[in-house]
Amino acid sequence: MSALDSALRAKLTEAPVAGLSTQLRRLGIHGATIDGLRSLAPGSKVVGLAKTLRYVPLREDLFAERGGGQNAQKRAFDALEPGEVVVIEARGQVDAGTLGDILALRAQTLGAAGIVTDGAVRDFATVAALGIPVFAAGPHPAVLGRRHVPWESDTTIACGGATVQPGDVIVGDSDGLVVIPPHLAEEVADRTLAQEREDAWIAARVTEGVPLDGLFPLNESWRAVFDAETEREADS
Amino acid sequence: MSALDSALRAKLTEAPVAGLSTQLRRLGIHGATIDGLRSLAPGSKVVGLAKTLRYVPLREDLFAERGGGQNAQKRAFDALEPGEVVVIEARGQVDAGTLGDILALRAQTLGAAGIVTDGAVRDFATVAALGIPVFAAGPHPAVLGRRHVPWESDTTIACGGATVQPGDVIVGDSDGLVVIPPHLAEEVADRTLAQEREDAWIAARVTEGVPLDGLFPLNESWRAVFDAETEREADS
Amino acid sequence: MSALDSALRAKLTEAPVAGLSTQLRRLGIHGATIDGLRSLAPGSKVVGLAKTLRYVPLREDLFAERGGGQNAQKRAFDALEPGEVVVIEARGQVDAGTLGDILALRAQTLGAAGIVTDGAVRDFATVAALGIPVFAAGPHPAVLGRRHVPWESDTTIACGGATVQPGDVIVGDSDGLVVIPPHLAEEVADRTLAQEREDAWIAARVTEGVPLDGLFPLNESWRAVFDAETEREADS
Amino acid sequence: MSALDSALRAKLTEAPVAGLSTQLRRLGIHGATIDGLRSLAPGSKVVGLAKTLRYVPLREDLFAERGGGQNAQKRAFDALEPGEVVVIEARGQVDAGTLGDILALRAQTLGAAGIVTDGAVRDFATVAALGIPVFAAGPHPAVLGRRHVPWESDTTIACGGATVQPGDVIVGDSDGLVVIPPHLAEEVADRTLAQEREDAWIAARVTEGVPLDGLFPLNESWRAVFDAETEREADS
Amino acid sequence: MSALDSALRAKLTEAPVAGLSTQLRRLGIHGATIDGLRSLAPGSKVVGLAKTLRYVPLREDLFAERGGGQNAQKRAFDALEPGEVVVIEARGQVDAGTLGDILALRAQTLGAAGIVTDGAVRDFATVAALGIPVFAAGPHPAVLGRRHVPWESDTTIACGGATVQPGDVIVGDSDGLVVIPPHLAEEVADRTLAQEREDAWIAARVTEGVPLDGLFPLNESWRAVFDAETEREADS
Amino acid sequence: MSALDSALRAKLTEAPVAGLSTQLRRLGIHGATIDGLRSLAPGSKVVGLAKTLRYVPLREDLFAERGGGQNAQKRAFDALEPGEVVVIEARGQVDAGTLGDILALRAQTLGAAGIVTDGAVRDFATVAALGIPVFAAGPHPAVLGRRHVPWESDTTIACGGATVQPGDVIVGDSDGLVVIPPHLAEEVADRTLAQEREDAWIAARVTEGVPLDGLFPLNESWRAVFDAETEREADS
Repeated sequence: MSALDSALRAKLTEAPVAGLSTQLRRLGIHGATIDGLRSLAPGSKVVGLAKTLRYVPLREDLFAERGGGQNAQKRAFDALEPGEVVVIEARGQVDAGTLGDILALRAQTLGAAGIVTDGAVRDFATVAALGIPVFAAGPHPAVLGRRHVPWESDTTIACGGATVQPGDVIVGDSDGLVVIPPHLAEEVADRTLAQEREDAWIAARVTEGVPLDGLFPLNESWRAVFDAETEREADS
Repeated sequence: MSALDSALRAKLTEAPVAGLSTQLRRLGIHGATIDGLRSLAPGSKVVGLAKTLRYVPLREDLFAERGGGQNAQKRAFDALEPGEVVVIEARGQVDAGTLGDILALRAQTLGAAGIVTDGAVRDFATVAALGIPVFAAGPHPAVLGRRHVPWESDTTIACGGATVQPGDVIVGDSDGLVVIPPHLAEEVADRTLAQEREDAWIAARVTEGVPLDGLFPLNESWRAVFDAETEREADS
Repeated sequence: MSALDSALRAKLTEAPVAGLSTQLRRLGIHGATIDGLRSLAPGSKVVGLAKTLRYVPLREDLFAERGGGQNAQKRAFDALEPGEVVVIEARGQVDAGTLGDILALRAQTLGAAGIVTDGAVRDFATVAALGIPVFAAGPHPAVLGRRHVPWESDTTIACGGATVQPGDVIVGDSDGLVVIPPHLAEEVADRTLAQEREDAWIAARVTEGVPLDGLFPLNESWRAVFDAETEREADS
Repeated sequence: MSALDSALRAKLTEAPVAGLSTQLRRLGIHGATIDGLRSLAPGSKVVGLAKTLRYVPLREDLFAERGGGQNAQKRAFDALEPGEVVVIEARGQVDAGTLGDILALRAQTLGAAGIVTDGAVRDFATVAALGIPVFAAGPHPAVLGRRHVPWESDTTIACGGATVQPGDVIVGDSDGLVVIPPHLAEEVADRTLAQEREDAWIAARVTEGVPLDGLFPLNESWRAVFDAETEREADS
Repeated sequence: MSALDSALRAKLTEAPVAGLSTQLRRLGIHGATIDGLRSLAPGSKVVGLAKTLRYVPLREDLFAERGGGQNAQKRAFDALEPGEVVVIEARGQVDAGTLGDILALRAQTLGAAGIVTDGAVRDFATVAALGIPVFAAGPHPAVLGRRHVPWESDTTIACGGATVQPGDVIVGDSDGLVVIPPHLAEEVADRTLAQEREDAWIAARVTEGVPLDGLFPLNESWRAVFDAETEREADS
Repeated sequence: MSALDSALRAKLTEAPVAGLSTQLRRLGIHGATIDGLRSLAPGSKVVGLAKTLRYVPLREDLFAERGGGQNAQKRAFDALEPGEVVVIEARGQVDAGTLGDILALRAQTLGAAGIVTDGAVRDFATVAALGIPVFAAGPHPAVLGRRHVPWESDTTIACGGATVQPGDVIVGDSDGLVVIPPHLAEEVADRTLAQEREDAWIAARVTEGVPLDGLFPLNESWRAVFDAETEREADS
């Protein structure tokens, strides 16, 4: 899959996840948030294209075949392209790790944009300190073999209640994570930034003491004021 | 995949799931139970080979592509072979159906051995009355599109916390469901039936008032008695 | 509020909840199922107009004011009109009763159509034996004062994850319960029964061995067959 | 511990659990219900003195020491006295059995009054068919060693959210289970039966169409009627 | 409702929530904590009078009537008085926002004392940075329309498992939140501060190595010492 | 029980919990993590010998006997030896405290190594500021009597899903907590530190861009390199 265009990446980096979620909703997509995870480094932002990885529940006979050595997990990490975000399906199991410090370091070394897992992370403090954005359901000391068999990569998965396909655009911040179908990413980003400008203007009015009634969302008369001021700024 | 041999099917029909689970455990497989489901017709037994079907979480853009018409769900049901058990991954979501009466009827018409879903069933009463064994997480009136996109069949899935591969042997009764790797099915069935005979003999002793101590599990002296009596029966 | 017209009641009694849910969905209403409850008498059907009752969490000072004597619960039951369904908001708490046998008997005596609560029922066996349809989250021996203060009736409430207004149409069967805005009830019932006739015809074809592909949902050519047969029947 | 007096046992067999729970509450005991379990044979009643058994979470080193042979579970069952109820602490874990058919049979043979476990039961159908009342959190095919180490008996335990001491009175029916401190059992039973007579009389009035207001609970004037009628009956 | 007296506000600002909870308990009120929420800015304290706001579950027909424009949410925020705390009933749903940065800013501009919601907050980082104390069940990017219809304000609600009435005193710190009936606030605050002084004195003794036995709670002889020292201090 | 040898304590302080968990797993112990807790002071480490304390569910009659005064909780804290870690069984209940600032201070004064509870902590901020490592399921303002009766100490308990015996070695860091049978502690610590050296060397290779394939875990040729370099270092 092609990398994320740098202009688009810049827009998505600026766009808050809450705003992206709203614009997806306006396009009829309500089920596009990856829920229940948190960033290991509060305040960090992740933007990138999904590299998917699916784990299935531990079954000892299958683990014997597929769990050890250069398994699906390690192959996926070794194959990371710059700008990709690893997204792991771990069925929300919080009582076993899904990756540790060496895997996170490998991702960072290859220029990955981040890691998202709805399972747990081992070596939590070390991983948090690396700098690569990681969103997970929590920490846990156990290896993945306690609950999982690493199964396959680059297929459609479920993560945090959302379906993620390889190449989907993933954006995360302190509000959570959103999955954007790639062909909608530009439009959603543009609409979000436009709405952000409008919301910032509304926030300025609220700070001045203007009531929400008619202002948020903008009614006709307030929109006229907003349009006039915005035009003036654009002209100056 | 080849159908289940009728002699093996007969053994598995006789073997209780609890016993099969114990024998799998002795072979080192602890993670082979599909949990949290119940039979629509209490007392029914299901034995067959898994035909897997995977749903992913509702995402409206993907549902538009894959949800309607002859989708993965309907293709899987139309392709059922006699003796197969449909096993559906629905991520334990109980607030939407994963099949209804027409799909269940199609399965029954094609000679399927049963249906297992970790989601809900629509038309619960009608489906229960059909006669085909169905194990589900509960009833729900809503169509699958409320929470799912039917995605693909004949791949490895997770159902009720267990990994199921196409062709795995599925056995269910009032204790729950077990997944048996096909190459182990004969051995596991045989050991289970042998153990059942032993347990039935132990139960007879318990009924006579013999304490558990030494009897269950059989210690050396009780095993000698059991062996002697069993031999005598075999001779007679 | 006016009672449910008897013709409409008859239609709703015939219409399965799964079908009603589907037709509501076609009108854009997805959040209209009361989830997580079960009938005390499996197989029973409830149809009626909602009489709402709201409990709030136990706070001893408020219970002292409002919990005893002819409280909101008893007033609501004493005020029941024939054909109404009591719908209780109990926030899904299953560790205290929300009504017992005497209340259920009062409802039955007054001709109420049923009782729906997302809390527990005391005197479970006695209430189940009465005959009035009751849907609840489970049994529990404790009085409501263990967790609740009965607060008010005839206001908008949340029950089993759905919003219910006084006078909404409630229909329940073995698939669950659905809330229908009263002005849509006739249309939803009619559409459901029409769809049921179509589905019954499809089921007959499935029984004959016709594949789902093209049949379910009906494609153009199958619909022509269906229309022709239906017409013929109507003519005869 | 001494067995339950037969007169008291008769009273408790007649007294519904809901009523016992109410009377305990009047004595200031609110936390005496064992919650979340259901009877394997709906409609059955259990009355007896608690024989407690505590399991702890599986730790393989401890299981090796204490899990096999005549472990704490089997010793407890072998030591059962007539009229006792085995009560098992299994921390609400529903994904492993806590007993199976042979253990249940041993209990029945020794005249035990019942079995209560907040874990699962193996050989569900067989155990249900035995006749001894069993209340459990559900069925599961796995042996207890999947999640538990049987640890000790005859100590204070937690079961279904309630504390149970050896010798406590256990009463269960379709509403749930209640734990009664032995020194309160007679008083609680008597009060419950008295209240039952009053409630039956109230129910008769409700059937006649009397409103709840003033009747339930009885106000002064209704109580006068009740007392008069009750006296008359006693005289006749 | 009248504002909180500034002397009382000062006392409540000093009083820890744990202590207030203990004193309410001594007055027989055990169900007065709003549970499961956390402060967006750890360490912050909220003290104020409740302004209640109730959301009901999303039902598309009701959202169309009541969800848009100057809905109940916005009317409630526009009507805030200085010193009030918005308390939102969102049924513990963590997968949709219940307010965002503009609403929080409006509350702050009007001098509100804080915001408490048992749902999620959008624009988490921005809201956290504003300075107004906010307690919530977590962050989520989605607008409230994903799960809720804003319904009404200034009625009795349930939030975090507690009943809150308009005008109730809300106090929150790092231990959680407590609801105090207004007529008890002064007494509860005074008792709490007195107990705090006693506990501080006990803590000093513990630091010196005094065992808990007899000291905590104070037995007669230790209380004599405490009283003597306290008097001396008061005299000096 | 004898204190933890200072050399062993030093090793365990250096060893990450994730590594200890892996080595226990290699010895066949998978169920040795205390799950679902978090440190009040992120980044802190706890190492010590378990002093166990068991609470049972609130039952008012038992609380009257055992809840007040110098109860089991206070006796256990007063009896703490330097280097011990209090480990409390609170059945995962997060809606009541299990200790507060004075108890924590007493533990610290006596030289305890830490406190671990699968219930909540009162006076969260004060306890966090003390310095003694505390791991808990969360904060809550209520006293323990809201949900618990402090029962006994120095017996085998369940905490966070793990069985803990008096004298077991407890180690916790940002990944969670692990319970080590004392006779295995030295071996597990040594193996962990050895593995840590290997992992650090692997991490250095990953930083240089070496793929995971063959490197992690070390295949034969990489192990030869590692051994050679390690030897050289040891020689220098």
